[in-house]
Amino acid sequence: MTAKKVVLLACGSFNPPTNMHLRMFEVARDHLQKLGFEVLLGLVSPVHDGYGKKDLVSSTHRIAMLRLALQNTDWIKLSDWEVCQEGHSRTAVVLKYHQNLINSIINNKLNDNINEQDAPWFLNVLQDSCRNVQSIQVKLLCGADLLESFGTPGLWADEDIESIVGNHGLVVITRENANPQQFIYMSDVLTKYISNILIVNEWIKHDLSSTKIRRALRRQESIKYLTPDKVIDYITRHELFGWTNNKQS
Amino acid sequence: MTAKKVVLLACGSFNPPTNMHLRMFEVARDHLQKLGFEVLLGLVSPVHDGYGKKDLVSSTHRIAMLRLALQNTDWIKLSDWEVCQEGHSRTAVVLKYHQNLINSIINNKLNDNINEQDAPWFLNVLQDSCRNVQSIQVKLLCGADLLESFGTPGLWADEDIESIVGNHGLVVITRENANPQQFIYMSDVLTKYISNILIVNEWIKHDLSSTKIRRALRRQESIKYLTPDKVIDYITRHELFGWTNNKQS
Amino acid sequence: MTAKKVVLLACGSFNPPTNMHLRMFEVARDHLQKLGFEVLLGLVSPVHDGYGKKDLVSSTHRIAMLRLALQNTDWIKLSDWEVCQEGHSRTAVVLKYHQNLINSIINNKLNDNINEQDAPWFLNVLQDSCRNVQSIQVKLLCGADLLESFGTPGLWADEDIESIVGNHGLVVITRENANPQQFIYMSDVLTKYISNILIVNEWIKHDLSSTKIRRALRRQESIKYLTPDKVIDYITRHELFGWTNNKQS
Amino acid sequence: MTAKKVVLLACGSFNPPTNMHLRMFEVARDHLQKLGFEVLLGLVSPVHDGYGKKDLVSSTHRIAMLRLALQNTDWIKLSDWEVCQEGHSRTAVVLKYHQNLINSIINNKLNDNINEQDAPWFLNVLQDSCRNVQSIQVKLLCGADLLESFGTPGLWADEDIESIVGNHGLVVITRENANPQQFIYMSDVLTKYISNILIVNEWIKHDLSSTKIRRALRRQESIKYLTPDKVIDYITRHELFGWTNNKQS
Amino acid sequence: MTAKKVVLLACGSFNPPTNMHLRMFEVARDHLQKLGFEVLLGLVSPVHDGYGKKDLVSSTHRIAMLRLALQNTDWIKLSDWEVCQEGHSRTAVVLKYHQNLINSIINNKLNDNINEQDAPWFLNVLQDSCRNVQSIQVKLLCGADLLESFGTPGLWADEDIESIVGNHGLVVITRENANPQQFIYMSDVLTKYISNILIVNEWIKHDLSSTKIRRALRRQESIKYLTPDKVIDYITRHELFGWTNNKQS
Amino acid sequence: MTAKKVVLLACGSFNPPTNMHLRMFEVARDHLQKLGFEVLLGLVSPVHDGYGKKDLVSSTHRIAMLRLALQNTDWIKLSDWEVCQEGHSRTAVVLKYHQNLINSIINNKLNDNINEQDAPWFLNVLQDSCRNVQSIQVKLLCGADLLESFGTPGLWADEDIESIVGNHGLVVITRENANPQQFIYMSDVLTKYISNILIVNEWIKHDLSSTKIRRALRRQESIKYLTPDKVIDYITRHELFGWTNNKQS
Repeated sequence: MTAKKVVLLACGSFNPPTNMHLRMFEVARDHLQKLGFEVLLGLVSPVHDGYGKKDLVSSTHRIAMLRLALQNTDWIKLSDWEVCQEGHSRTAVVLKYHQNLINSIINNKLNDNINEQDAPWFLNVLQDSCRNVQSIQVKLLCGADLLESFGTPGLWADEDIESIVGNHGLVVITRENANPQQFIYMSDVLTKYISNILIVNEWIKHDLSSTKIRRALRRQESIKYLTPDKVIDYITRHELFGWTNNKQS
Repeated sequence: MTAKKVVLLACGSFNPPTNMHLRMFEVARDHLQKLGFEVLLGLVSPVHDGYGKKDLVSSTHRIAMLRLALQNTDWIKLSDWEVCQEGHSRTAVVLKYHQNLINSIINNKLNDNINEQDAPWFLNVLQDSCRNVQSIQVKLLCGADLLESFGTPGLWADEDIESIVGNHGLVVITRENANPQQFIYMSDVLTKYISNILIVNEWIKHDLSSTKIRRALRRQESIKYLTPDKVIDYITRHELFGWTNNKQS
Repeated sequence: MTAKKVVLLACGSFNPPTNMHLRMFEVARDHLQKLGFEVLLGLVSPVHDGYGKKDLVSSTHRIAMLRLALQNTDWIKLSDWEVCQEGHSRTAVVLKYHQNLINSIINNKLNDNINEQDAPWFLNVLQDSCRNVQSIQVKLLCGADLLESFGTPGLWADEDIESIVGNHGLVVITRENANPQQFIYMSDVLTKYISNILIVNEWIKHDLSSTKIRRALRRQESIKYLTPDKVIDYITRHELFGWTNNKQS
Repeated sequence: MTAKKVVLLACGSFNPPTNMHLRMFEVARDHLQKLGFEVLLGLVSPVHDGYGKKDLVSSTHRIAMLRLALQNTDWIKLSDWEVCQEGHSRTAVVLKYHQNLINSIINNKLNDNINEQDAPWFLNVLQDSCRNVQSIQVKLLCGADLLESFGTPGLWADEDIESIVGNHGLVVITRENANPQQFIYMSDVLTKYISNILIVNEWIKHDLSSTKIRRALRRQESIKYLTPDKVIDYITRHELFGWTNNKQS
Repeated sequence: MTAKKVVLLACGSFNPPTNMHLRMFEVARDHLQKLGFEVLLGLVSPVHDGYGKKDLVSSTHRIAMLRLALQNTDWIKLSDWEVCQEGHSRTAVVLKYHQNLINSIINNKLNDNINEQDAPWFLNVLQDSCRNVQSIQVKLLCGADLLESFGTPGLWADEDIESIVGNHGLVVITRENANPQQFIYMSDVLTKYISNILIVNEWIKHDLSSTKIRRALRRQESIKYLTPDKVIDYITRHELFGWTNNKQS
Repeated sequence: MTAKKVVLLACGSFNPPTNMHLRMFEVARDHLQKLGFEVLLGLVSPVHDGYGKKDLVSSTHRIAMLRLALQNTDWIKLSDWEVCQEGHSRTAVVLKYHQNLINSIINNKLNDNINEQDAPWFLNVLQDSCRNVQSIQVKLLCGADLLESFGTPGLWADEDIESIVGNHGLVVITRENANPQQFIYMSDVLTKYISNILIVNEWIKHDLSSTKIRRALRRQESIKYLTPDKVIDYITRHELFGWTNNKQS
């Protein structure tokens, strides 16, 4: 049986990126390979500046930090399509765009709906691994909190949930004490597409988040070993997130 | 894509059978169908009298109770092969026997290793659904406690665990507070065959066991709605498990 | 010392009835007998259609399902008085009605406040066991959630709580993790009548509810062993609660 | 209905006595009165020196401390019968002795099995409240830990448990997180006599024990407000439990 | 190294005072001495009548109960300054007043900002222990709930929190299951002054509060051993908090 | 007030070193600085090969990995004294050696008990920061599990615990759910020296250990972002801990 080919796409603020964001890809790839998938590529798609979250630094900074964070990995790539749009894009739209793009590469019909010069630079990567491939599925890589946000009234359009879970699929990184299965059980639409939702346990738990990194920086505390050194250098050089180089005691 | 065909086999004492034993089959079938399997048959294989567990009533009684318990279901059948052997059979052997038997039916080679007159009566059932089928997998249906028992030193032979999980596969019925994923993570061999282990959440939990039923009977308490009425009739008529019809207050 | 005689009355939607509803009566009777009570009768009083709960099927269906559910028990009876009133009756009123009715039977004064032809059919049952009895207490059989609802502001009239607990008494079926004692402690009125509140632990827990059965039916999942087979037959025949017989895959 | 009359007897080391020991009596009396009992008397029976527990100070000290601790209560009395025996007495024997003694007072047959001059000084107390009383039950007042110790293999003789629970009865002071009901359910003999076991919740929990008081004294820490001031004076004056008056810093 | 000298000040309703209030002082003193502090004095400052809390009895009663409660301790004193002001004083103001007062005594400049005749009677106590002392710090003694209340929006003025924690310091009595460290971590200002916050574990937990005592009194239940006997006498003599001396059964 | 100067020493297997080991130093330094300490240096002292733990790779490998792990930090240094001894050294001895060494540097008496050529290379580092310093305290940096191991009977000599906690002091990195305070309370010796035990909460929890890294390597899973990339390169190049470069699928 030939392995099903998969691309993992992670959306989010990456404000700043953390080791947690990067680790999720590693954990997911290991698990999916045990289940018989082949993971071709990881994609990171930072949110548009227009998302309007408090404390969100400009996409110029976030893109720069992500490029530094991804320098030491050979299979996770940055996609700046979302950040270059006019405004905020819904996750279902981001997923669909990347799925269409990959389908075009496979079918050698790039020029049909996407101009080659518009296509992101990770095309080269994919074109190599897409030769003679019949289909590649783009799946949304996320934490259990995103899955749970599906239940918040008014947050997601019903057709977006249906599209994300039904057309693409979820790879949910979770922890021992979280309970994504319970959450799926409570929702009719998630239960319907349960075969499209892969739950991956992250056994080496890390209670790390961009919020906690921002809190540490605001308090002039160390964030070493929580994000790559080059990201720390960038943050301190630009004095982002409340860090100050000239401290008075 | 054609559905993978599956037979679910449950081993155990069934001392006595309970609604829990029967409900496991229903829960497993519903879930497997959502994942794209077709469940052809459920099989119940009670343990041999030589298993030597305390309080174990004779297989004559257990077989009789199971027959009564299965009267109202059309897809779960009794297999008395295990109970008719000379002594206790290891679970791996029981699984292998039933897998071989089914393979023989599919390949129309029953007389090769099994005499038709020796073959159990559920052959008819299978023969109907096995026409033009290429393969049927026998999987062990069990609770999270069986999975956890794999970790008890000396309880299982390594090659038996490898055979059960590697050759056949597990369907593990679990509950919210149990943590079979943690248990799989702790074991190298279970992690290796993780794609053969299907975890099924039983959301409508029932804290029911044969032990609790025996305790109730010993105390002359009601077990109604915990096992089919016909099983209750049989137990009280034969005064099994400490029940007495002539009570003095 | 002669045993105190008790009738257990359960109110609720029974939409549909479940094994849980029936099991509560068995558990309560066993426990009360250990405490020295004699339980003469169980009564099930489904709520009036005017209760206006979402998803509530008509009382015709609920009465029919209850009759089927009670066919295999000889001591739990249906009381259709509540369902036959003009509109919704408060629980305190339902309790009082049945207590008065039973008092009339004992005192042979049925014609005083209740016409014999108006009296429900379970009169015959009671009349047999009421000969030469001095008093029978009707107690409300309920789960811990009803007890806790007493604390929801505006849900219950103070005089109704006082009447239910003070004049009749509660038999509360509870589970290990629930904490009805804590709830009683927090309430002055429940503490005052604590001798009228019997807490019965249900050690063989079943996390079953009508809500969960409706969810399963809506998803075309099995509810076998969760309610009597005859109730399932009725539900599927009438396609209640979202069940459909003609499914398209 | 006339109230059932009860005497509460607490056994233990009282090494030293604490506010907890005294508070148990108050909590029990309040609760039993709500249930319709009349509590005539509390009795404290310290264990014999021969009990051989580590760190146990001599009964002379313990009796002295108890007398001081009981000076400010009018209904809890010291019984020094147990401490005056030749050696250690089993709890069942202590209960039986006091029950017999009280029966003798009621029946005016003191001289039959107990000489008046041997009878303890609390006879006067009882004789007043026993006039024209038909029966008084001596019940063992204890914490949930004693109930749980019934399950420790080899600790209690079966006939002693049967005698304590069957002939006398238990008043068990418990806390929210303890689970004496579960413990009763697991034991056939406790379930049999469940109507003789009164569970009393102590809502104003105090995690106080003689062990903790001894630990504090050994560390020269304050035990004020944990036991009556007069007991503290006695302990420090006699330098019990590791307390030293001449401390070097 | 000479020990840092400290005065512990507890604010609150003391409605009524409980053993818990008194015990907090003992626990704090023991712990601070282990850390190298010398605790000179404990001060209890009841809230002004104008605080307007429901069920608050008049300060005349609360002062009277506190005087009785403090009769048996030689180092905890009543400060009636707060109760004698025109209206409610903020905690920061109460702390500052007492710190200033003590500074004046040390510097022998009482007449500068405080008239000697206005100074409270505990001056004498302090004057003795303040000779040749360079500085004494007044710290707020409180439970974990006060610390947590700092996070309730709108409850405390930011400059008051800064003043209390930055200028004076907190001694927080806590319990195993509370988590004051987590609360400090969530707050920038508390983290900034973390060296001024002493967390003291109360290992002999007592789930006692004035609220629970009032509830018991309202229900005519015993509060013995929960507050000094003299306080109980005062409460019952004045029939405070719902206690009634003439009960009808 | 001048800050107390501190050196943090971490003992352990570092088999392999993880981000967790390094992060502990950062967390400890941030916290100690808030409490008024100045942290001059971090020291890592890997255990001798003779420690005899299963799966322990040779100190040559562990030293090499540590050197790589410490390349990107400027204040944590490797001490190879322990690993160069004849056999296993007790933690108390390792602490004492380093304290003596530092005292010698401060007092300019290196040649008294330690030859300069024998002195480790981090002397230069210290000599700079030790000019005109009066005292530097070497404290043991550890996790809550080491503190708890003090309670395991027979594991530690009493005089070693007394020496470690009394003469040097502990900096314990802990997590929300651990309870080192409870552990200290249970031990007389730890309570005695409580002012020498600094508990540091690690709010950004990471459930990472060398054991989990070894498990991942044995299963050919990714350990990226769990230890520095250079350590991963070393491990895979030398095929340590079960990693194999030539995998067959």
